Amino acid sequence: MTLNEQLAYLTKGAVDTIRIDDLRAKLERGRPLRVKAGFDPTAPDLHLGHTVLIRKMRHFQQLGHDVIFLIGDFTGLIGDPTGRNATRPPLTREQIEANAETYKTQIFKLLDPERTIIDFNARWMNAFTPVDFIKLTAQATIAQMLEREDFSKRYSTGIPISIHELLYPLVQGYDSVALQADVELGGTDQRFNLLMAREIQRSYGQEPEVIMTTPLLEGLDGVNKMSKSLGNYIGINESADDIYGKVMSVSDDLMWRYYDLLTDLTAEETAKLKAEVETGSKHPRDVKSDLAKRIAADFHSTAEAERAEAEFIRRFRRHQAPSEMAVCRLNAAGAGIKLADLLVQTDMAASKAEARRLIAQGGVRLNGERAIDANLEVKTSGEAQLQVGKLKFLRVIWGA
Amino acid sequence: MTLNEQLAYLTKGAVDTIRIDDLRAKLERGRPLRVKAGFDPTAPDLHLGHTVLIRKMRHFQQLGHDVIFLIGDFTGLIGDPTGRNATRPPLTREQIEANAETYKTQIFKLLDPERTIIDFNARWMNAFTPVDFIKLTAQATIAQMLEREDFSKRYSTGIPISIHELLYPLVQGYDSVALQADVELGGTDQRFNLLMAREIQRSYGQEPEVIMTTPLLEGLDGVNKMSKSLGNYIGINESADDIYGKVMSVSDDLMWRYYDLLTDLTAEETAKLKAEVETGSKHPRDVKSDLAKRIAADFHSTAEAERAEAEFIRRFRRHQAPSEMAVCRLNAAGAGIKLADLLVQTDMAASKAEARRLIAQGGVRLNGERAIDANLEVKTSGEAQLQVGKLKFLRVIWGA
Repeated sequence: MTLNEQLAYLTKGAVDTIRIDDLRAKLERGRPLRVKAGFDPTAPDLHLGHTVLIRKMRHFQQLGHDVIFLIGDFTGLIGDPTGRNATRPPLTREQIEANAETYKTQIFKLLDPERTIIDFNARWMNAFTPVDFIKLTAQATIAQMLEREDFSKRYSTGIPISIHELLYPLVQGYDSVALQADVELGGTDQRFNLLMAREIQRSYGQEPEVIMTTPLLEGLDGVNKMSKSLGNYIGINESADDIYGKVMSVSDDLMWRYYDLLTDLTAEETAKLKAEVETGSKHPRDVKSDLAKRIAADFHSTAEAERAEAEFIRRFRRHQAPSEMAVCRLNAAGAGIKLADLLVQTDMAASKAEARRLIAQGGVRLNGERAIDANLEVKTSGEAQLQVGKLKFLRVIWGA
Repeated sequence: MTLNEQLAYLTKGAVDTIRIDDLRAKLERGRPLRVKAGFDPTAPDLHLGHTVLIRKMRHFQQLGHDVIFLIGDFTGLIGDPTGRNATRPPLTREQIEANAETYKTQIFKLLDPERTIIDFNARWMNAFTPVDFIKLTAQATIAQMLEREDFSKRYSTGIPISIHELLYPLVQGYDSVALQADVELGGTDQRFNLLMAREIQRSYGQEPEVIMTTPLLEGLDGVNKMSKSLGNYIGINESADDIYGKVMSVSDDLMWRYYDLLTDLTAEETAKLKAEVETGSKHPRDVKSDLAKRIAADFHSTAEAERAEAEFIRRFRRHQAPSEMAVCRLNAAGAGIKLADLLVQTDMAASKAEARRLIAQGGVRLNGERAIDANLEVKTSGEAQLQVGKLKFLRVIWGA
């Protein structure tokens, strides 16, 4: 890649790059850059939203740079410093190590372990002397801190901001000093802290890092940000089938966004695909299937992704049950059970009312046949196959 | 003393006592209280303005309590944490110890060394861990800090407040925790920090200290606060003669203020004196002389104070030169010098213009005789006696 191509690849999808000329200058020096990104020390369960940032780290790795996956365990070791919140006890060193292992098994699906440094900021922060603290806190002012949007909003609405909260952006900034970071990546919500890190590095006589923010990824609904609590997410530990199937469910518009943020295609390559769809030389469904396979392959193998595609086609295009489906073993109590009760018992419906509604809407199949009677008696022996909607299948087996 | 008399004596002259009921409760317990007052670690040269606070410590000592003279060396050990001010290097441990010795020789003129604990906050602050810091800074909010008058003024006028400045009130508060202070004394300018200390003690599970603020003492002019830079002060290392003479120069109004703040008389005793002056049974000059002797005796002996009084009477009532006076030895250059030039040469006048004015006003005596000619030729051999105003005498001796 030429320097310009490298810059285009590295900044693809980024919201802010401050400043791109500095990044060019750093790349021109020819030595591998130290690219930092900070992560929470609490137990992680990553979804595709998180991978936007991790993929950006990967892009740097692909071009020969070193990435530092920094776990902010210093604050995690503290717990609730006000002592008011008993439910936030400090994490132990063991918990933090265990969480780091959980991170590793997930991030190494995208990152090259050889070029990834895992570090912990407690390494230098726990060695901080009182004088070090005074020096660090002397590098910023209240006015600067209140420029941070959430702080200024809280301050103006009278919601207390403890002084220790002001320390965290400073500590995050000092991390860049300790790591001699050339580049720092973070979400758009980290913009203030990243800018602060540049100031702190300057105060400590270092060249300020280039900062780059990655956008929040929209969830499957295409509207809200992907989040576990909204249920519109794809977890990276999900099966290839689920990942493939979920990606296939997104809108054509969102598909292009995902191409940008969830693949390694260059902006040019994606633009070419888009043109092909627009001119009709490619069918959007096929392009989406390619996307779904790429993403599934990131977290499983290419073979798995292809099997998921085949399975998907078999299930949904031909309206067939999957060749493998979840199994639920029940103890037989009595000779039969009403269909609605069975749906509740097997968690295929959240309540009896929901079960009745699903049946009434024609969304439930028993042994492949649409069932329309909620009171239908199902024999509680042998086995039965349940289907709710297009996606939920369950094989029920009765026995001891 | 009854409890009520103790309360009246201890709060005599105080601006704020927060809260007097708490002080009563602490006194009722019958055990000696731990009374804290904090001092700057920079080289001290105390004047009577400082003694208002030290005398308040003494009042506690007189009633059997322990006072803690706390030197805030922690910040002194830091220097300028921004690194911008090269003229504020950190103090060394040796400098701080030397300053402490200078303090001791001065404060032990008023305090009983047996009941005085000299301590240094670096003792516990230098042992602070990062976690300790986070915990301490979690105990206060930005909004609380901006209630401090100087902070809010600076914030609203856009003068930067560094985050480390917020640490100092917190550290001062933590000092009270470390010392388990029952009472803290400070100037009125310390009110915010003292109130903060109460909060910090509460956060650390201690009963909050009673805080008491002492007023700023007016200088000799009766208008401005006593300060070295304004020249309206009485240093506690000055001679008994100077202390006595300067006190005699204050107005009758200011005399009562000084009785309140610079003596151990109870409020009742002072009120009685005042009544005696008002009814004419005592002459204000005699009451002022008593005050001057008391203050001179605080820093010298009673005998010295009485000698100073006698000397004062001799000099000023009888218009005689003092029996001992300052001597200035000059090299003879030429046979004579004009009187105005001599006044400048010997620093009895700041400039030739001032010398001429003093002479024209009849304020200058040469060898006991009023001189009215600025051009009067003074022989530059042997010696001469100069007097400017009532207080300044100089014996000039010419020779090699």
